[in-house]
Amino acid sequence: MKHLILLRHGQSEWNLENRFTGWTDVELSKQGMSEAEKAGELIARSGILPKYCFTSYLRRAIHTLNIALGAMDRDWVPVVKDWHLNERHYGALQGLNKAETAKKFGDEQVHVWRRSYDVAPPALEAGDERFPGADVRYAGLAMGSLPLTESLADTVVRVRPCWEELIVPALGLYGDVMIAAHGNSLRALVMMLKGMTPEQIVSEEIPTGVPRVLTLSDRLEVIDDVYL
Amino acid sequence: MKHLILLRHGQSEWNLENRFTGWTDVELSKQGMSEAEKAGELIARSGILPKYCFTSYLRRAIHTLNIALGAMDRDWVPVVKDWHLNERHYGALQGLNKAETAKKFGDEQVHVWRRSYDVAPPALEAGDERFPGADVRYAGLAMGSLPLTESLADTVVRVRPCWEELIVPALGLYGDVMIAAHGNSLRALVMMLKGMTPEQIVSEEIPTGVPRVLTLSDRLEVIDDVYL
Repeated sequence: MKHLILLRHGQSEWNLENRFTGWTDVELSKQGMSEAEKAGELIARSGILPKYCFTSYLRRAIHTLNIALGAMDRDWVPVVKDWHLNERHYGALQGLNKAETAKKFGDEQVHVWRRSYDVAPPALEAGDERFPGADVRYAGLAMGSLPLTESLADTVVRVRPCWEELIVPALGLYGDVMIAAHGNSLRALVMMLKGMTPEQIVSEEIPTGVPRVLTLSDRLEVIDDVYL
Repeated sequence: MKHLILLRHGQSEWNLENRFTGWTDVELSKQGMSEAEKAGELIARSGILPKYCFTSYLRRAIHTLNIALGAMDRDWVPVVKDWHLNERHYGALQGLNKAETAKKFGDEQVHVWRRSYDVAPPALEAGDERFPGADVRYAGLAMGSLPLTESLADTVVRVRPCWEELIVPALGLYGDVMIAAHGNSLRALVMMLKGMTPEQIVSEEIPTGVPRVLTLSDRLEVIDDVYL
């Protein structure tokens, strides 16, 4: 039996400000740091200790992982950072206030962008300062890999190679693996693991800072799925 | 041209208490955290930005690296943790107060243990709770790899494979590499890089929390060596 521990980052400064975040690299709030600390303590108490970890390229996930590892006295555990685990890219909505966006485009349209499976928000235009290719951390990627916006379906496509090429082999080698990431990249993983439909995954809410432990068979079938 | 940035961890809680630390996994002091923050700011200002990082299995080095990367807005840079970069193992002296040890064994003996190249302190005995094999992070290592005590010469032998097998290839791939580690593992690296003699390396003092930038030719000859 193997264990996959999923941890959505704690509250960020933009969760507080009610803004669309996506790939914007915002900090954890003070409350987010406490959530990460508590998550680490819960994992330590559970006795299911990660031997290998993954996180995204975004500091709210990286710091959540660092704080949680510290709280379980496992700072030394290997960590791989992979941009494929980033949050869903929110296109031209990134940085906008959610309430203002609803006023401008209508509640219904915003609901579709937020809750549909395969509708993406308006794409970033070339030359927008939010374009990922302008950021040094993504500068080495092929243009075709860089999202200008994403639906949840696009995020699932993007997360899949990280799952197949990195996480599955790590589960094979290490048994107990932890992933500190984002609402939608974690949804993508849960969807793949549990064979969920688009209708099922869009209504799956993953809370911030609460460790979720999936117990897996050696063939990676989900035997148990609980929040700590 | 390539750059190797060496950073000795900031002040730890046991530096403050004047105790022999070695492989004991103590925390940074508040001052140590500030030193790490300042080191990151200095590196950011220098414009020589690490593209790949190494650190030890000990939290005072890991936290120094995490804090410094945060200060230079590069949390996303890959980090490899390797126990070969741990501090010199201080054997049965680990945890003892330096002044009390000097009283017990004499100033001269302690000076020899601390400042000679190839004299190791008394070894840990089997069953000592400080034995590294009792620690989960080293539990997978072959018995013969686990030090019970080390001279600086032993530390140099231990650091060499990490240098040759991991750091040199990373310099080739990434050009600018940073290592956050310890007084004696960094001495070992400096000795190898600069071809220093035992007499030269024992008098080399590396201050805590001050980034040292070695500019290297493509054949890894040292062209320049400065503290920021």
